[in-house]
Amino acid sequence: MSKRLGKQTVAFQNPPWVAAGACVVGKKEGEGPLAEWFDVISQDSYFGEKSWEKAESTMLRHCFALCCDKAKTAPSDLHGIFAGDLLNQCVSSNFAARDTGVPFFGLYGACSTMAEGLTLAAMALDGGFAETVCAMTSSHFCSAERQYRLPLEYGGQRTPTSQWTVTGAGALILKNGGGSGAHITHATAGRIVDAGITDMNNMGAAMAPAALDTLTAHFADTGRSPQSYDAVITGDLGQHGHNVLMELFRQEGLEFSRIFTDCGVLIYSPEQDTHCGGSGCGCSASVLAGYILHQITEGEWNRVLFAATGALMSPTTAMQGETIPAICHAVAIENMREV
Amino acid sequence: MSKRLGKQTVAFQNPPWVAAGACVVGKKEGEGPLAEWFDVISQDSYFGEKSWEKAESTMLRHCFALCCDKAKTAPSDLHGIFAGDLLNQCVSSNFAARDTGVPFFGLYGACSTMAEGLTLAAMALDGGFAETVCAMTSSHFCSAERQYRLPLEYGGQRTPTSQWTVTGAGALILKNGGGSGAHITHATAGRIVDAGITDMNNMGAAMAPAALDTLTAHFADTGRSPQSYDAVITGDLGQHGHNVLMELFRQEGLEFSRIFTDCGVLIYSPEQDTHCGGSGCGCSASVLAGYILHQITEGEWNRVLFAATGALMSPTTAMQGETIPAICHAVAIENMREV
Repeated sequence: MSKRLGKQTVAFQNPPWVAAGACVVGKKEGEGPLAEWFDVISQDSYFGEKSWEKAESTMLRHCFALCCDKAKTAPSDLHGIFAGDLLNQCVSSNFAARDTGVPFFGLYGACSTMAEGLTLAAMALDGGFAETVCAMTSSHFCSAERQYRLPLEYGGQRTPTSQWTVTGAGALILKNGGGSGAHITHATAGRIVDAGITDMNNMGAAMAPAALDTLTAHFADTGRSPQSYDAVITGDLGQHGHNVLMELFRQEGLEFSRIFTDCGVLIYSPEQDTHCGGSGCGCSASVLAGYILHQITEGEWNRVLFAATGALMSPTTAMQGETIPAICHAVAIENMREV
Repeated sequence: MSKRLGKQTVAFQNPPWVAAGACVVGKKEGEGPLAEWFDVISQDSYFGEKSWEKAESTMLRHCFALCCDKAKTAPSDLHGIFAGDLLNQCVSSNFAARDTGVPFFGLYGACSTMAEGLTLAAMALDGGFAETVCAMTSSHFCSAERQYRLPLEYGGQRTPTSQWTVTGAGALILKNGGGSGAHITHATAGRIVDAGITDMNNMGAAMAPAALDTLTAHFADTGRSPQSYDAVITGDLGQHGHNVLMELFRQEGLEFSRIFTDCGVLIYSPEQDTHCGGSGCGCSASVLAGYILHQITEGEWNRVLFAATGALMSPTTAMQGETIPAICHAVAIENMREV
């Protein structure tokens, strides 16, 4: 029996069970509106390390250990880790997974990494290639700022459309079979979409067309509509990108209702002065592992579409005048009784 | 029926068929001993572009188009591209796939990317999630040199253990069912192994222990021995790393015979003054898509173990005093009649 629905979507025959999610975030994220759902809020942005890169990797390592603990799973029982991040050569993930002894699949999906990882992890499980796997990712404001933008010490003014890279890590452990709660039922893999944006401080506008592309493919492939979901949550368009996506939906004659929201919009309050909200792999990952999973397991939401977005440029391509390609991967997560 | 053999290995129930492989390389690679098996040898290291990064991406785009052509497959029939490269944020792959309209899974496995991509691509096919997919990767001497080491104009002396980043791209299109020829029968996913090496000019020694780890896991999981294969080909340990691996096998009391070779050793002749041979994602990818696939389809070899190795550090982690984590993913490729 084919598991394919259309060109981009797969429906899992035995939807993988989310055995646990864990998230570790920084101080600023802990002062935001989602604070109560984060597992760990660190007051030390260095996480005990001496560089921002090591800090990010240590935060992700803590998050992985916590997730294994919450899932009552020994790392040695895992058949795979699917992980990546924003740092050059994905070193946050590589070093976080270095001592685990778990088969490792390195990913680069920029801020879409959590959804990409969940897609591949769910395929590995439903395809019969694994019994227990982990998808995880991270970002850190300080390591991202100096790699993508300017030295922290420079203190340059930020443009109105800019977003704030979330200091945070998120991990989910998925299993075949298992208990009641959140299950991954569908995945819609994204295509690269380039809307011609060149401003690296306007990622929301660069990524919104990719979100439109993947969401419309998901609805067409599954025969579902936005109303089939309790929430459709893009991951990290921010307020400006969210507005652009709303406008794009309207232009397509599609309904864009209040069930649509965005991890970048949710994670900070307007008073936190982040301009357009959060960004970074850790934004959608920590919001998923914290807020979204809790809403599902506590019965607030029965069916959620998690659509993480990523901008696939580099500082080098931006300096060479290239436009910003973007991607969006979406996974449907459903509250199911034991299967 | 479980497709798992042990902790790290999967056996494909319906081994995906390699419908075609394609490779595009630079001038120096075209002067080496494998020249006759490369599809395209470019005399222009800029590939008509104005920067090394764009050159690498254009080379990969050509390689992808050629592979689709050889496989008689329209890009619009592909259900997925699995790709990554060495450039920061994997921009060679992102920009090469930008206009394809194909669902895209971005990977970061450093020089192990081709084997990682083939593993995930074969899982997607055998798991019933896709019918036709592509795995591809690239590297370029000039883009790698300036990102990882020194400006090209600097002309610094290279150390004896250093390797030469291959200017090359490789792509394979895999299909379910299909014809006679090469099929992916097994995949052994690598764990991260850190042997404590800190010298970024001695990648071979950093990666050899990862190759040992994955190869011994593969033989244990499958019950096979090196003699089960006509060739066991690591990719890109280079001559020094190959020697280290030989020594490690001896220390473990395992036989290391002449069927073991390495893509980094094969791609250049000693006269080409590359010191320890080739490296880069494009090294093992172009040797696989060129030389190895031809040896299989022409009946010289019936069963090959392709074990691509990657070093997972970044220039930043190296400068921060970190050791070099490494990984090796292995796929078994077998000449099979139509299945």
